[in-house]
Amino acid sequence: MASSRISVLALSGGVGGAKLALGLRNVLPAGELAIVANTGDDFDHLGLFVSPDIDTLLYTLGGLSDTSKGWGRADETWSFMEAVRQAGGEDWFLLGDRDLATHVLRTQMLAGGRTLSETTAHFADRFGAGATILPMTDDRVATRVLTPVGWLAFQHYFVRERCVPAVSRIEFDGAERASLNPDVSKLLATRLDAIVICPSNPFLSVDPILAVPGMREAIRSNGAPVIAVSPIIAGQAVKGPTAKLFAELGLTASAANVARHYAGLIDGFVLDEQDAGTELPHAMAGRTAQTLMQSLEDRENLARVVLDFAGSIGRRR
Amino acid sequence: MASSRISVLALSGGVGGAKLALGLRNVLPAGELAIVANTGDDFDHLGLFVSPDIDTLLYTLGGLSDTSKGWGRADETWSFMEAVRQAGGEDWFLLGDRDLATHVLRTQMLAGGRTLSETTAHFADRFGAGATILPMTDDRVATRVLTPVGWLAFQHYFVRERCVPAVSRIEFDGAERASLNPDVSKLLATRLDAIVICPSNPFLSVDPILAVPGMREAIRSNGAPVIAVSPIIAGQAVKGPTAKLFAELGLTASAANVARHYAGLIDGFVLDEQDAGTELPHAMAGRTAQTLMQSLEDRENLARVVLDFAGSIGRRR
Repeated sequence: MASSRISVLALSGGVGGAKLALGLRNVLPAGELAIVANTGDDFDHLGLFVSPDIDTLLYTLGGLSDTSKGWGRADETWSFMEAVRQAGGEDWFLLGDRDLATHVLRTQMLAGGRTLSETTAHFADRFGAGATILPMTDDRVATRVLTPVGWLAFQHYFVRERCVPAVSRIEFDGAERASLNPDVSKLLATRLDAIVICPSNPFLSVDPILAVPGMREAIRSNGAPVIAVSPIIAGQAVKGPTAKLFAELGLTASAANVARHYAGLIDGFVLDEQDAGTELPHAMAGRTAQTLMQSLEDRENLARVVLDFAGSIGRRR
Repeated sequence: MASSRISVLALSGGVGGAKLALGLRNVLPAGELAIVANTGDDFDHLGLFVSPDIDTLLYTLGGLSDTSKGWGRADETWSFMEAVRQAGGEDWFLLGDRDLATHVLRTQMLAGGRTLSETTAHFADRFGAGATILPMTDDRVATRVLTPVGWLAFQHYFVRERCVPAVSRIEFDGAERASLNPDVSKLLATRLDAIVICPSNPFLSVDPILAVPGMREAIRSNGAPVIAVSPIIAGQAVKGPTAKLFAELGLTASAANVARHYAGLIDGFVLDEQDAGTELPHAMAGRTAQTLMQSLEDRENLARVVLDFAGSIGRRR
């Protein structure tokens, strides 16, 4: 992996981030995109290791995702879940029959001593992802949130509790002990044209990546322009608990606050046309674009804007 | 389990044995049947613990089996296997999407410290098996066969190699160190009306049960009449490699040789009407019946014959 051909590195969480990653892959020359994936959502369920953001990236880039449902695999069937319910197993987290193959095979490979990076490369190859997908670390990091009912593991909060409990604090358990994926280190030591923070939840999807020791420094020291795309459009999140979470953390949900969150890390910020005129932190360039990605064309257009913006900023050195 | 109400204990392998077990359950008063299941076929596959004979019993007694296909679950779907193939996983052993729930949940329960007996009781309850299903042991016993290509694990021989290699020797790896399931011991210390060896493969399905230290002695010392039903009809096996195996082991495939195999253990032998006149070992009573079980009525009729035969022999003490 991490061939010297890679020119752009994207940081991504799940669905929203994967949309831009797909756009970037399509508009870049073949093999030039690498993606660092959040693994803070990873968890063990029914004895299987589940890595939701990596899977979303694999399925989205491999053309296997269910674009109407917005998550999971296309042509999915649900016999396994029916039988789990019948047999009295936990059924709050939906595992489709096709999706299950990824979890079973990955769990088997991990048990056999392979790393999460190796299993991810295996699936990316089999599914024809056409991009290098790199877990932020091969160590276990578990995002958890403090709520009125106590600390909740991320998937318990996100899926089982449907993001209802108010979040007062977020932690990335294990992050301080985690080793930065060596392939990410190597790649960040090469000359890149752009580093892109995809429009994922800053607190739940991007911060875990940035919490891995050495990640921030490696990103900054690469010298490539770092561009973030706002996941907030006119005070609203396209999907998920992002806007609600801003409020619970005492912040207005706004593109301006996303930009402020990334101050010191990014050089350029892409915000929606509806947020034109937003004041950005000192020394941060801005570019407005249509950031809502409904069609494949939307994804590719936004990717072109991001790359053009990065080109206009240029490498710092 | 092992309530004092149990009056009949059956020893069973997979499909053929489960048919008679179903008949016995239906004709006995509720709760009076217990079945000792062969676990020599159990194996780890794709990181999951699979117990084929227990599953066949669970599905057959729970009314969940695919009666047209003869194995697996009814209304089964195969999305998981398709996805396993796509992802480059091993695909020689077919795991249906519904069936998979049993393996995943059992593997999870075993990893959490529950015994195979406990997991089996859980599924029997959830599936409404209406009988007590007892693994012969909670320890690992692995049937393996010596062939011209070397020793093969049972499922590799049976499924992957479709029973093609000639078998010269059969071993039950781990049997000598296995502890007889304590629930089986307890049950065999109670006064039973009959012990029934179902028409399963004597070498591959019943011998592993009998190889568990103490099993033979406990069966004999119970005092209940021990009745075996021939899996060979007019020199042919209803299903599977039984007849071929007889030949490879240097024996004629015949009801007489099945009876000889069980000499010293059984008191009565049920053989097919087509085999009337077969000479049985000394001190072994014989009863002919229609042993081919095609309909549910066939299963129940054969069960009635077996129980009537046991009653006519009576307890030894």
